[in-house]
Amino acid sequence: MTRFIAVVLALFASSTVLSQSLSVKSTDSRYLLKVEVTPAGILQYSLSFLGKQVVQPSALGFDLEKPKTKLNRFKLESVDSSYINQNWAPIWGEYATIKNEYKELVLHVKQTTNPAIQVAVRFRLFKDGLGFRYEFPSQTNLSHFVVKEENTQIVVGKNHTAFWIPGDYDTNEYLYNTTKLSEVHALAAAKKEKDIAVTSLVSDQTVQTPLLLKSADGLYISIHEAALRNYPAWLLNLNKANFSFESTLVPDAVGNKAYLQTPANTPWRTILVSNKATEILASTTILNLNEPTAFENTSFIKPQKFAGMWWEMHVGKANWPLAGGKHGANTENVKKYIDFAAAHKLDGVLVEGWNQGWEDWFGNWKENVFDFVSPYPDYDIQYLTKYAQSKGVRLIMHHETSGAVTNYERRMDTAYRFMNLNGINTVKTGYVGKIIPRGEHHDGQWMVNHYERVAAKAGTYGIMVDAHESVHPTGLHRTFPNWMANEAARGTEFNNAPTLGITPEHTTIIPFTRLMGGPMDFTPGMFHMKLNQFDPSRKTVIRTTLAKQLAFYITIYSPLQMVSDLPENYEGKMDAFQFIEDVPVDWADTKILAAEPGDYLAIARKDKKSEDWYLGAVTDENKRALALSLNFLSPGKKYEAIIYADADNADFEKNPEAYKISKQMVQSTDQLSFQLARSGGVAVRFRLMD
Amino acid sequence: MTRFIAVVLALFASSTVLSQSLSVKSTDSRYLLKVEVTPAGILQYSLSFLGKQVVQPSALGFDLEKPKTKLNRFKLESVDSSYINQNWAPIWGEYATIKNEYKELVLHVKQTTNPAIQVAVRFRLFKDGLGFRYEFPSQTNLSHFVVKEENTQIVVGKNHTAFWIPGDYDTNEYLYNTTKLSEVHALAAAKKEKDIAVTSLVSDQTVQTPLLLKSADGLYISIHEAALRNYPAWLLNLNKANFSFESTLVPDAVGNKAYLQTPANTPWRTILVSNKATEILASTTILNLNEPTAFENTSFIKPQKFAGMWWEMHVGKANWPLAGGKHGANTENVKKYIDFAAAHKLDGVLVEGWNQGWEDWFGNWKENVFDFVSPYPDYDIQYLTKYAQSKGVRLIMHHETSGAVTNYERRMDTAYRFMNLNGINTVKTGYVGKIIPRGEHHDGQWMVNHYERVAAKAGTYGIMVDAHESVHPTGLHRTFPNWMANEAARGTEFNNAPTLGITPEHTTIIPFTRLMGGPMDFTPGMFHMKLNQFDPSRKTVIRTTLAKQLAFYITIYSPLQMVSDLPENYEGKMDAFQFIEDVPVDWADTKILAAEPGDYLAIARKDKKSEDWYLGAVTDENKRALALSLNFLSPGKKYEAIIYADADNADFEKNPEAYKISKQMVQSTDQLSFQLARSGGVAVRFRLMD
Repeated sequence: MTRFIAVVLALFASSTVLSQSLSVKSTDSRYLLKVEVTPAGILQYSLSFLGKQVVQPSALGFDLEKPKTKLNRFKLESVDSSYINQNWAPIWGEYATIKNEYKELVLHVKQTTNPAIQVAVRFRLFKDGLGFRYEFPSQTNLSHFVVKEENTQIVVGKNHTAFWIPGDYDTNEYLYNTTKLSEVHALAAAKKEKDIAVTSLVSDQTVQTPLLLKSADGLYISIHEAALRNYPAWLLNLNKANFSFESTLVPDAVGNKAYLQTPANTPWRTILVSNKATEILASTTILNLNEPTAFENTSFIKPQKFAGMWWEMHVGKANWPLAGGKHGANTENVKKYIDFAAAHKLDGVLVEGWNQGWEDWFGNWKENVFDFVSPYPDYDIQYLTKYAQSKGVRLIMHHETSGAVTNYERRMDTAYRFMNLNGINTVKTGYVGKIIPRGEHHDGQWMVNHYERVAAKAGTYGIMVDAHESVHPTGLHRTFPNWMANEAARGTEFNNAPTLGITPEHTTIIPFTRLMGGPMDFTPGMFHMKLNQFDPSRKTVIRTTLAKQLAFYITIYSPLQMVSDLPENYEGKMDAFQFIEDVPVDWADTKILAAEPGDYLAIARKDKKSEDWYLGAVTDENKRALALSLNFLSPGKKYEAIIYADADNADFEKNPEAYKISKQMVQSTDQLSFQLARSGGVAVRFRLMD
Repeated sequence: MTRFIAVVLALFASSTVLSQSLSVKSTDSRYLLKVEVTPAGILQYSLSFLGKQVVQPSALGFDLEKPKTKLNRFKLESVDSSYINQNWAPIWGEYATIKNEYKELVLHVKQTTNPAIQVAVRFRLFKDGLGFRYEFPSQTNLSHFVVKEENTQIVVGKNHTAFWIPGDYDTNEYLYNTTKLSEVHALAAAKKEKDIAVTSLVSDQTVQTPLLLKSADGLYISIHEAALRNYPAWLLNLNKANFSFESTLVPDAVGNKAYLQTPANTPWRTILVSNKATEILASTTILNLNEPTAFENTSFIKPQKFAGMWWEMHVGKANWPLAGGKHGANTENVKKYIDFAAAHKLDGVLVEGWNQGWEDWFGNWKENVFDFVSPYPDYDIQYLTKYAQSKGVRLIMHHETSGAVTNYERRMDTAYRFMNLNGINTVKTGYVGKIIPRGEHHDGQWMVNHYERVAAKAGTYGIMVDAHESVHPTGLHRTFPNWMANEAARGTEFNNAPTLGITPEHTTIIPFTRLMGGPMDFTPGMFHMKLNQFDPSRKTVIRTTLAKQLAFYITIYSPLQMVSDLPENYEGKMDAFQFIEDVPVDWADTKILAAEPGDYLAIARKDKKSEDWYLGAVTDENKRALALSLNFLSPGKKYEAIIYADADNADFEKNPEAYKISKQMVQSTDQLSFQLARSGGVAVRFRLMD
């Protein structure tokens, strides 16, 4: 730790009312952060990147409910600064090693009116992003307090292009909108959405993070938060008069935002900027702002690929409830999935609809739906556990709470013990429905704490977690490495939604938005694109090519990667399926080769267990030629490139399932050119030849 | 079962729009219930007692939130009737056997507007009370539904004297008010109260049940509810224009009242009437309206007397938290209580302040206060458990939730297992503070279900429950015999409250109000009446004589009866203490000898384990002579009466601790005359001489 600012403190000794201003540059000098307390006592910051002002002076502050006071007029008491440069190794992820290098500036300020509450704002400036958070130290005047609102401004000041979803307290499963900021109309956009179970919209000018902006002069700006703990998710209220955002927090059942006790801190507010879209995707700022794990034992945590009794229900072949005669999760059926997983080296089999309660689970704010330990009588869990074990496969349990979280919390211990008894060490949780405690929201402080309780408790039982319908991730998988993935965005299941579904561009946007916070259980791997397979009346289709589905295993990172289609839909296409069988879920390195949000991206990743590299590229509704340098490969080494590409006549609307597979020898000095069909993609395995 | 109404059904075949009216008399013909559907479709009932109309025609109905409809216009579809006469034996209580004899009338009605929802109203007319409830049968038009309000009227029609407390969603710890109905001003009354932790008042005209009314012509009317399950507590809105009450239910966090699913029913609405106050106290209607227990094992349930590490904290000798240097619940101190209990045949020792968290437990809506398994380091629970065991005494555990019920629910299993491991089989729960889930109230549906979950789960662990700050009891101790007592009213601890405290008349009212629902852990047994013992600045005193404290063991029934004062305060008065040592907590029979609400009452009870009888009588702020016939004693048998009376010069203000003890031989043909001092009492043991 190095003190890099010493002189500035001299300023504070003076009793002038001039602005007290500090500035810090990132180690590569690209970022310039300025922080000041104005003569009027306003605490504000601004941010430039390569000499361009990205964030104009933007005020920081709070509105407290208890004690009833506004924290918006400060005097600067002292400043701390430091420099950190260290490396750390995630348990799993996109990189074997991550550099955590930043300059830190902590402003200790005090409210100038009574009560004279002390606040600190801690800024960390990385080479690939800025994070700052508020801290409320222990102090005589403040112990327990209630937040009415956080008043953090981000004045971008220009009518950028924005990739946004409507602000909502309960869901992030919207399709992304790409508009100028002046054209943001959240309520109008949400009105087009018919297929989201529970929505709680905020205002026409409220959007969610991760939010991506693109400036006319070619800067990409990603705004999000890191380490969201014991605090509600934030949303951003857009003011079109000056193109500024002001934070607003998800309320609780009585309208308060957060209940805190000193010492306390907010999550980190993150602003990543680059003139290269690829750098946004490569940023590790959000992970670096999270705490290292406190887990002593992480040996039970294993990235996995898994098949699942799941898509059958979505396409109408089977159903979750026993009643109705189409119960999918019966012993025989699940056995087939186990056989399929075993035959193709998949680690797990997710089973939805295994437990009693699905006959009356949704839509009535019902509290006692599932008990999480009572299988349907046609589901022999003990037999299947043993059978799976004999095949080297493990079952993955599904805990749908239907939003009745009080019910889940009082049953969690029993449920996890039941999993332990049955040798199941991964749970997919679900929160479809209005939350109980009634009046609470999916993204409020109480639920944020719930998701963390699940991760922490599951950890004590040696269980990995994949949470669906949860709050947006904020890099907490560093702290809770067993909390491996979240849905928390529009995933594959929406291909089955009649109204908007998943557009071709969606998967070229979510890496820049939703995935900035952490891995997504997007559930890729669809090989059969028409969804009328079991119900001829269905008109919905999957709007990608098959090769694009393969590419998702690279472009949408998750350590829990589903192999989502029906086993029978892979039959006859096992040559293409080979990529899914081969692709790892844990990586030694990642290179973002090319990217433009809403248009395309190409990523190469190196297997953690071998010298092989894998590449995935996807495009939006436009076909696209990509020429990619292979300079990520080890110099002088020879690789066999197995290329899973769109067939020449592939097209997401006319011929989505057409692919071609080719092989060629390549090395790091080569370049490969790919022709991506409309909503197409390409997936490549680079096999090191010894 | 006998059908006693057959002819009435003929009526319904006619297509006239005349009122369809039914009437039933109680088996002793004192009660007359009339029920009708008016030509306008209003379903109403009225009730007479000995020819006097007690309840004028009063409408029944509902306002639903989902489906959005008012249920207030009905047509009568059919009627069922039956007669039941059976006896049952409670596990413990005031009677060894209880007669359950009633006539039942069930009106099946259907809403005349769409949706044509079917409702049934079930009336049960006993000799000592009326109960009726709404039932929503399974039906095509109604499965899940949400109650906005229950619109049950009780038109008493006259300006009765009322014994009432203000309507409140969170507390029933008010002092009772005795006024004409025209003088009910709930908000004004509540404004005088300064010592209740959390209040949520409703309106100036809203009162709670149990409510007692007394008519000018000498009728006593008790209004309450029985079997409050999966439903909020009700309150009564008074309309002074016609002296009618209309029900209002405690809301949840979003303002809804109840979430129900057919088949569903409300609690029983109970109206007990008599021209004798003693009959109100003797009524078993509320117990009879509760379901028999479903517990297969009740052998762990044992009525108890217990001492406790509790009053020390209230009088400032000790404190709950470890911090501050006055920690009461330390090993040495609790050992003394165990010795005291063992020396005086008390079954248990309650220990409050044993567990970590008291330093910051109250007033901040804090969720994670206690974990219920972490003793303070100076409290050696394992040693004390063994020590108690060696003395034939058991510890009683205290689980103060501080209102953070979500936290308690997720820890209950672990906490009860911890109790099992430590051989502790009774828990005193507490709910001091605003409820979490935030926005929920102590008396709402969610909390009503919570209290029942505690009783049910504790039952599975062989644990008895004594709930404090809980909803008003409604006879559920029949169904959950391990849920033995509740506070749920103003008890002894309020003697220490500076503003109003406990008035002399309070304990002559609560048997007619609060105790109608079930046993109260009032915590009697105070021998030292000035509370400046450890803190000379305290001005509060206990406003009873010592003999009245003894009488409470008879007049305030509980199967968990505390011996509340400090052991050292009993020293020097061990002759009086002998009554506490002798008095049972489980009874074969009970006779209400004399009673007038607000003035006095005298009760005799027969020990369940012997032929001995015990008598207790108390008076209000007036001294009083009582001449009581002993005709409850077995004829021809001789008894030694040991009489614990106020000394001649005893007076709750001037000489509260003066008592005298005398013995005399008596038999059933005798009469005993007692002089009760101001706020005095008398306690008698009748020992059968063989």
